[in-house]
Amino acid sequence: MKAEIIAVGTEILLGQVVNTNATFLSEELADLGIEVYYHSVVGDNPTRLESLLKIADRRSDLVVLCGGLGPTTDDLTKDVVAAHVGQRLVEDSNGRKELEAFFTRAKREMTENNLRQVLVFKDGIALPNETGLAVGIFYQSPTTAFLLLPGPPSELRPMFLHHGKALLQEKFPQQEQLISRVLRFYGIGESKLVTQLAALIQKQTNPTIAPYAKPNEVTLRLTVKTDDEKSGQKLLDETEAKIKEEVGEYFYGYGEENSLEAVVVKLLQEKGCSVTAAESLTAGLFQGTLANVSGASEIFSGGFVTYAKEQKEKLLQIDPALLAENGVVSETCAKAMAQNARAIVGADYALSFTGVAGPNELEGQPAGTVWIGLASEKGVVAHLYHFTRDRSYVRHSAVMAGLDLLRRAVLAQ
Amino acid sequence: MKAEIIAVGTEILLGQVVNTNATFLSEELADLGIEVYYHSVVGDNPTRLESLLKIADRRSDLVVLCGGLGPTTDDLTKDVVAAHVGQRLVEDSNGRKELEAFFTRAKREMTENNLRQVLVFKDGIALPNETGLAVGIFYQSPTTAFLLLPGPPSELRPMFLHHGKALLQEKFPQQEQLISRVLRFYGIGESKLVTQLAALIQKQTNPTIAPYAKPNEVTLRLTVKTDDEKSGQKLLDETEAKIKEEVGEYFYGYGEENSLEAVVVKLLQEKGCSVTAAESLTAGLFQGTLANVSGASEIFSGGFVTYAKEQKEKLLQIDPALLAENGVVSETCAKAMAQNARAIVGADYALSFTGVAGPNELEGQPAGTVWIGLASEKGVVAHLYHFTRDRSYVRHSAVMAGLDLLRRAVLAQ
Repeated sequence: MKAEIIAVGTEILLGQVVNTNATFLSEELADLGIEVYYHSVVGDNPTRLESLLKIADRRSDLVVLCGGLGPTTDDLTKDVVAAHVGQRLVEDSNGRKELEAFFTRAKREMTENNLRQVLVFKDGIALPNETGLAVGIFYQSPTTAFLLLPGPPSELRPMFLHHGKALLQEKFPQQEQLISRVLRFYGIGESKLVTQLAALIQKQTNPTIAPYAKPNEVTLRLTVKTDDEKSGQKLLDETEAKIKEEVGEYFYGYGEENSLEAVVVKLLQEKGCSVTAAESLTAGLFQGTLANVSGASEIFSGGFVTYAKEQKEKLLQIDPALLAENGVVSETCAKAMAQNARAIVGADYALSFTGVAGPNELEGQPAGTVWIGLASEKGVVAHLYHFTRDRSYVRHSAVMAGLDLLRRAVLAQ
Repeated sequence: MKAEIIAVGTEILLGQVVNTNATFLSEELADLGIEVYYHSVVGDNPTRLESLLKIADRRSDLVVLCGGLGPTTDDLTKDVVAAHVGQRLVEDSNGRKELEAFFTRAKREMTENNLRQVLVFKDGIALPNETGLAVGIFYQSPTTAFLLLPGPPSELRPMFLHHGKALLQEKFPQQEQLISRVLRFYGIGESKLVTQLAALIQKQTNPTIAPYAKPNEVTLRLTVKTDDEKSGQKLLDETEAKIKEEVGEYFYGYGEENSLEAVVVKLLQEKGCSVTAAESLTAGLFQGTLANVSGASEIFSGGFVTYAKEQKEKLLQIDPALLAENGVVSETCAKAMAQNARAIVGADYALSFTGVAGPNELEGQPAGTVWIGLASEKGVVAHLYHFTRDRSYVRHSAVMAGLDLLRRAVLAQ
């Protein structure tokens, strides 16, 4: 079952609107076991839309179109697809009733062009629009199925979820379903991870293994095709075990929506431990990131932003002589920041961040030089990092490195 | 000049990643007077990519490809396009140097597959990657120009802005140029702004006015078609003046890449003033956001994260009786936090943030209830906000509101 998604709308080609409909529909179709092979976007132009339909008709079993169902003369998707498949347009009586009811409720006069929104194919199926006026259409030609949905996401999503999805399941029942599992890694680059797993990734066909790099993270998405859930999960378990044999030390959690901070907060909650921080170059981002996680208040009560040297002395009570001797971009400073923050706040763990965000160097040290300190009941350590790229990336990298240091310390406790 | 954009990446077809590269490039190409007629997305599959290239070659003068330049065997854009146009792949010596320098700096071992990232076409032009390792390529075949860019937006955007754009301008000079100006607004929703400007937006054809909503912000992009810069700028000035008559009180700055924090830091620098903060629900995000701006150290030395009540008492020396009586989600608490932070740090301005990030209520107050305090030599005020949506949005909204409060205070000083 090969599908493709065509979005119709000049505003997307001008860069004024992001094509999030394609993203939404892709995820939904994958869940139904329908594979999406292409996305396309074309403007409100009948000739170019027809040329895309010709191409789509040859290469796909299902073509989902979004946009161009509205009342204006720009909205031409229905007319062009109808002509392409040789269908006559007729009025949908339910849609007409809804349309009239809407204008009565709104106490507005209905202009003639609004009737265009309730036209459907003579032999098609009309899909009601719960949040708008333009009716959707499903039509099966001898070679290809077409699903026409409205452009605004607020109309497209409910129409697909409440009507389109069940219709596709009924028309294209799948023996096989797709089950995915996402493994998350920190501390290893995409290319190194892929090199270590090269043999596995290449010979592996079910599940497939797809690496994906985010800033400072790599995820592996395992996707299995299966006709029953249980054996699918078993295949995923086996592949996960093989992956962990190679790169398990970098694995920290599961799930597309999971995050390193969520894993850290959960760990601290489980162990009943608290954390504080003293941040220089990150200036609050570490603490702000921890508090992204709902329930962070159980493990975090507060901390310090000591951006300038004077505040390291004032708020953290660090001996000025010590900073004068060692500088602020130093192991000594990082250790003192972590120790003093831990003592003042009264937490089990304290992280400290001091270094050079850039673009300029500081104390003769290049941008990207960062010391991260970690104080606990076991004492204090500090690690030196050399992060790359721009200011924002250096700061983000430091936050991620701090989270991972803390995660490993709590796991080892 | 007909162009199209092809994004290569299975993750987009699975709905895991939104194709924001196409949006960015569409906007940029429109600025260059290059019309984008199609977007396509195809998976990491050589046969299907080649079939798209054949189609693109027939219908477009310029094909911009994004993604698939990385080090893994999945990354096949270069190989497929090279085969399509009959070019041999050779190593880019600058890219190779950067690659080696990167691994030396990062003190990591370079795996062999990384070299794939610096391969370019024998007769092509290499585009340096300032924020990553994969080199871009421009190549002009007898019929069609190809521009290959990396997939991660953090690499694609600088490569296009600093190298690709000038190259396209040189290769495809336009008689009529498009000049854009972006106006930025805070404190007014997109629909309200568009309603207030409806008449103007509708009758305006040169420049056109395109509204775009970001979280907590709206931008208006004015685009004028002109054959000389000066008269273009005059038209933009006139339209800007008309817009400001309607919604000028919400305007805070210019430019796609500008930000409210950058405007605030610049203002404080100009006035020679400093700021500190005491953050509860935002937990460091306000200070971390200020320090996004290079040069923030001139106006910000540090501050407090007082997430729990105990730290408001300990770090900010707020009277426990005052908090017991009024609660922490209160005007009194916000004022005390701002005043005490200002006094302890010794800054001209102090912001405070206390409230309910959610999802649960706090002290009987619903999620989204936020007090923001502002202390200065004029005294202290606090404002009550009711933000909506989820935890993350509430915290982001609070940071933006705090920045705008500070901006207005500094402007009025």
